[in-house]
Amino acid sequence: MEANQAIGIFDSGIGGLTVFREIERLLPDENLIYLGDTARVPYGNKSRETVVKFSTENVLFLLHHDVKLIVIACHTASSFALPFLEKHFKQPILGVIEPGVEMALRVTRTGRIGVIGTNATIGSMAYPRAVARSSPKIKLVQAACPLFVPLVEEGLLTDPLAEEIARRYLKPLKAARVDSLILGCTHYPLLKKIIARVMGPKVHLIDSAQQVALKVREVLQLMEMAHPPGNGTRSARRFFVTDEPKHFELFSSRFLGRRVGGAARVDVARVV
Amino acid sequence: MEANQAIGIFDSGIGGLTVFREIERLLPDENLIYLGDTARVPYGNKSRETVVKFSTENVLFLLHHDVKLIVIACHTASSFALPFLEKHFKQPILGVIEPGVEMALRVTRTGRIGVIGTNATIGSMAYPRAVARSSPKIKLVQAACPLFVPLVEEGLLTDPLAEEIARRYLKPLKAARVDSLILGCTHYPLLKKIIARVMGPKVHLIDSAQQVALKVREVLQLMEMAHPPGNGTRSARRFFVTDEPKHFELFSSRFLGRRVGGAARVDVARVV
Repeated sequence: MEANQAIGIFDSGIGGLTVFREIERLLPDENLIYLGDTARVPYGNKSRETVVKFSTENVLFLLHHDVKLIVIACHTASSFALPFLEKHFKQPILGVIEPGVEMALRVTRTGRIGVIGTNATIGSMAYPRAVARSSPKIKLVQAACPLFVPLVEEGLLTDPLAEEIARRYLKPLKAARVDSLILGCTHYPLLKKIIARVMGPKVHLIDSAQQVALKVREVLQLMEMAHPPGNGTRSARRFFVTDEPKHFELFSSRFLGRRVGGAARVDVARVV
Repeated sequence: MEANQAIGIFDSGIGGLTVFREIERLLPDENLIYLGDTARVPYGNKSRETVVKFSTENVLFLLHHDVKLIVIACHTASSFALPFLEKHFKQPILGVIEPGVEMALRVTRTGRIGVIGTNATIGSMAYPRAVARSSPKIKLVQAACPLFVPLVEEGLLTDPLAEEIARRYLKPLKAARVDSLILGCTHYPLLKKIIARVMGPKVHLIDSAQQVALKVREVLQLMEMAHPPGNGTRSARRFFVTDEPKHFELFSSRFLGRRVGGAARVDVARVV
């Protein structure tokens, strides 16, 4: 393994660019490869079996590109597939569940934490398990918010409709008086304004992306695989998608803060 | 080709069961095979290239099962893939676009027709092309309704939220004073109540499923491939899905009117 190998990041689609952005910000010297499975998006309404299958194909695709570390930017894929992938692959693989939980445990004062996600993520019980592992006394309240992803995809980020839907979904979390709320899906940070308005100013909203980037740095340093800084040449960024790239490129700025160009279409199901 | 070969029906997921139901009702002696691509659903936000690829794989899967005729129950797949599939495959293939248009042309008095569908279906321009082919003087008004499918999938069929969303989407169609409205997606008939309330009692809502079944009967008779009636044994129905079947079986009654049992999981991408 060498330091100039890339970090591989995959997601069910475009939302994982929020994780890509934080890794790029914290580790600008690293080479990065992003894979969005836009032909088969979303994962959040599919079964464990199918999500594990797709995630394994994504990992194999990234390994073909000789990455030194893999980040699962998708919460559903992290929930369903991380245990399987960690068990079978040699290369280090990080998910987005643990980092979000760690952050929540650090900021909570009352020990009442909320988490929102897709039907699959919430149904997987990955969050309750992660919390129970590190801090069994915490009260965790879960809520699935299946309409949040389509709302974000339609650009209804501050619409009264989105707020009305948020009010319904977040009711049990408000009732449970959580003091911190994990945004357990890459799309949800885009609804932060509305979620904050509904939950009130005292509730910490936890976006796992930054925390994941810190974890990546930690692992690379531990394994002495971090890319050395400042060699003059700009580090490389490559983007792959499984559907036609136009739509991905068009909406990339919403998640990445800048427009992606030159994304390549690949068929990960055919790689292996 | 023989009369006892099955009719193959495919859809991106579960919605095509509404088409299956009408074919079963009209042609109870036919053997039927249904394929729902639930692992890759939805198609309505994907590119032409990807939808053509997936549809071709679905057709090949059904041909492996020796079907005599194929019905594309999905409007997005019909819009994007039917021309390609008709051109290259020998077996007759029917889509859901033309039948809906034929029905609308029959019921309209003012010549102002509306159509609603997914982003992909509306963007494909398949409906305007079909209308222009048969009746160039008709005024067709299109509207994409991307949140309708997630609303139906969440079971919000008569919720005030669904009505508010319908009011927004249908505004241009009301303004254009259409007298008939094609429900250009298999999920939309489940929102019929709300759509009818928004459009008013004078607007005909056109669900293509019945019309497709009539078309199937016509083609089979023309080709002398119809299954002979009343041989004592019940005709066969088989259901295949690409994701785990539990969810499909659970929600099948919403679309089929009865619960499907014994659906089998298949990997159509691996068949060819």
